[in-house]
Amino acid sequence: MPQEKNYHMTMDQFRKYGREMVDWIADYYEKVENFPVMSQVQPGQVRAMLPKDPPEKGEEFGEIMKDLNRVILPGITHWQSPNFFAFFPANTSAPSILGELLSSGLGVQGMIWATSPSCTELETHVMDWMAGLLGLPEKFKSGGTGGGVIEDTASSACLCAILAARERATGYESNRIGCTGKLTAYISSQTHSSIEKGVKIAGIGLENLRVIAVDGNYAMDPAALEERIIKDKKDGLVPFFACASIGTTSSNAMDPVEEIGKICARHGIWLHVDAAMSGTAAICPEHRHINSGIDLADSYSFNPHKWMFTNFDCNCFYVADREPLIKALSILPEYLRNKATESGAVIDYRDWQIALGRRFRSLKLWFVIRHYGAEGLRHHVRRHIELAVAFAEWVRESADFELAAPAPLNLVCFRHRNGDDFNEELMNRLNRSGKIYLTHTKLGGAVTLRLCIGQTSTEMRHVEQAWKLIQETAAELANEKGK
Amino acid sequence: MPQEKNYHMTMDQFRKYGREMVDWIADYYEKVENFPVMSQVQPGQVRAMLPKDPPEKGEEFGEIMKDLNRVILPGITHWQSPNFFAFFPANTSAPSILGELLSSGLGVQGMIWATSPSCTELETHVMDWMAGLLGLPEKFKSGGTGGGVIEDTASSACLCAILAARERATGYESNRIGCTGKLTAYISSQTHSSIEKGVKIAGIGLENLRVIAVDGNYAMDPAALEERIIKDKKDGLVPFFACASIGTTSSNAMDPVEEIGKICARHGIWLHVDAAMSGTAAICPEHRHINSGIDLADSYSFNPHKWMFTNFDCNCFYVADREPLIKALSILPEYLRNKATESGAVIDYRDWQIALGRRFRSLKLWFVIRHYGAEGLRHHVRRHIELAVAFAEWVRESADFELAAPAPLNLVCFRHRNGDDFNEELMNRLNRSGKIYLTHTKLGGAVTLRLCIGQTSTEMRHVEQAWKLIQETAAELANEKGK
Repeated sequence: MPQEKNYHMTMDQFRKYGREMVDWIADYYEKVENFPVMSQVQPGQVRAMLPKDPPEKGEEFGEIMKDLNRVILPGITHWQSPNFFAFFPANTSAPSILGELLSSGLGVQGMIWATSPSCTELETHVMDWMAGLLGLPEKFKSGGTGGGVIEDTASSACLCAILAARERATGYESNRIGCTGKLTAYISSQTHSSIEKGVKIAGIGLENLRVIAVDGNYAMDPAALEERIIKDKKDGLVPFFACASIGTTSSNAMDPVEEIGKICARHGIWLHVDAAMSGTAAICPEHRHINSGIDLADSYSFNPHKWMFTNFDCNCFYVADREPLIKALSILPEYLRNKATESGAVIDYRDWQIALGRRFRSLKLWFVIRHYGAEGLRHHVRRHIELAVAFAEWVRESADFELAAPAPLNLVCFRHRNGDDFNEELMNRLNRSGKIYLTHTKLGGAVTLRLCIGQTSTEMRHVEQAWKLIQETAAELANEKGK
Repeated sequence: MPQEKNYHMTMDQFRKYGREMVDWIADYYEKVENFPVMSQVQPGQVRAMLPKDPPEKGEEFGEIMKDLNRVILPGITHWQSPNFFAFFPANTSAPSILGELLSSGLGVQGMIWATSPSCTELETHVMDWMAGLLGLPEKFKSGGTGGGVIEDTASSACLCAILAARERATGYESNRIGCTGKLTAYISSQTHSSIEKGVKIAGIGLENLRVIAVDGNYAMDPAALEERIIKDKKDGLVPFFACASIGTTSSNAMDPVEEIGKICARHGIWLHVDAAMSGTAAICPEHRHINSGIDLADSYSFNPHKWMFTNFDCNCFYVADREPLIKALSILPEYLRNKATESGAVIDYRDWQIALGRRFRSLKLWFVIRHYGAEGLRHHVRRHIELAVAFAEWVRESADFELAAPAPLNLVCFRHRNGDDFNEELMNRLNRSGKIYLTHTKLGGAVTLRLCIGQTSTEMRHVEQAWKLIQETAAELANEKGK
């Protein structure tokens, strides 16, 4: 059949350029270790290389490919370098990239079951698989009252948890009448900032967010939590939500989930457990103790897009009871009505998230689990933890450095004994070298360096090189300063 | 250097399987026209083909590829079929798929400028390009007080607008003290459900959402809007937010943005303009009149992932003044502090959205604009509108069917004269045939069929076939019913 005039890339061209892009990516991974990990560009430098106006006429794809190396690469901070130890990892893997490629190729909308049953059913299935791999309580699986859903981020997951909790705590009235100003939420001083953001978004108000003190290991003090809950209730407030962290962002601190859970149960508070990065460790039986107490949680989330070889975005969010979540987030305009939804026999994930539209994200998780198998996933997570244990041991044995917090899994918080300014300058010098990238936090008021091991291809040699570089750079700096 | 034992896919394997996946996708597009558009599976059918437990040992990638055809395809509703006329399009294109592939290959986190300057700067640049292509007011560009950002969806964009408006209207107090219950928001009965959802999420309360009546063309009645605002103010309430639609979801109705904008300006109300699908039409000068009045808007959003050949997710969200948005959404934990942020010389898009993490989404938009050029984009958008105009004309001339609303762009709302049950049965029969897929709405209480033309490769022959099938199926049904 003759085609109308069009400007589309032909499928023959797509096959050709698709191969070139796959090869470009493979080349990238083969070279990435040698790139400066943190981009060295100055503000505005990337934009200065781009033409002011969009093209009137279409360009050859080869021209676009050329700009990848010229314009884009210098401004990339290489999260996929094995020398990336900053923030948290956002690791990925070849099967995950292929899963994402398939997802954009199929180009389906998964907002409701009917708009692509495979998108919904594979997601439900893989989320049940994932619950099994982590040893999560049965209540988080789709067969009972709860279930899992893929959100874009842990931020969105915790916002959904806050909204479900808000609705439940107000007898399902907050959506209708708005916030009362009486609800109070509980975190620790180490809880991720996304809870603060979620509390603001949900109209709870920061004044109603209680920041509970932590112990010497930066874990929430459960006695202080219950004390504050009791005080708030006496003051006529309604404690409705608490977040416990399995692995805080700053220092990987482990909140006592079981004790917190019992307190929440006593006071009718929704407990959300945020295991954004560290949750992955529970796929190894010997690390599963981190999940102790989560049978008391109302919701739980972790990110395969941090430490499970699945490219961003892929957050796994589980609820023990899907009803409050769906009541909080459901909408049903006429144009989305359909027989499958009305039969009640299907899940419409639109009602489990903030947005309406959704991608086919379970494909990449499915690919990753099938490619690695449980065995392969466990191997790599174990290995990362072994590397962190080794690094922590080197720090412990060092005369110049000290550990700043326990290192239960893959994050080591440490500092040079020469104080804040020295540590900050050390970090900046290391990052400017381009050889490694690490970031900082403050613990007990002191500047602390964080070395987080989780990039897919990080091996012992990278960690050894990093430690050598850190020691040498510190010695050089101490020498300059006459310390 | 010898590698440690690992379970990763090698880069040689990635090159091989990557090519296979590219070819699979190309084959898919070459065949998609022949697949039943709406998936014909029953609830549970996809899951039933999946093993109960995840694999302990990793599988060959070839095994995974086999399951694409066996398990996944039957459960796909083919949004990329040229015979897809349902809901809104979620169209895509080969360059967009390649852009998304590159994004997952690079695997960067764009939460702040420093975590990959290219990710932030390309986004700012392409958003300025896009503003130029649409002829948006200068205030929406990054050079002035405002700027653009890519959100996942129009739902998220409108939630961000509501939150910025909420903060501004409360003197930047709502984040701190929570919602007062005094704020009121304004939509029409035809506004997208995401505003209702956003109002609930933000703690405003549905009782404070005013649903303004529409005129005979389903556009908001501005007199009724102002009347209600004045009443609310008299009652001691604080009108703070209104949403005008350029192309409603049900029927593509065009709210009178200019009149609404003047009313909002008089009363100090944040005006958000939602042009989710229809916004794309403004790239054609002859259709740009749809944007008349948006110089009065505080925020504007449209979706290249609907009708601009860019795969989901890619929503373009613009604000006239970035300060309220950033004040509403910013967080700055110690571990994200960095020199670039503190210099004030860079944008940190983390503070322009709900989530913290973000993908490198501007790549695909950049690829699409460069591949098609302004000329190519205009050609295809024009062509889709021409096809809809032709279809509307056929309906108008038909004895059995009637238009149910004006068809200003690419959506035609129509119905058979035989009433609701007949139209519903007609739609179900058409969709079950697998030959086309269309969905319904209710207009003036009557079941109405929607034929939306926007899939990338839809041409005249597909629209002609659709009309022929609709007429034949209706005749067959009328015959059976003796009507």
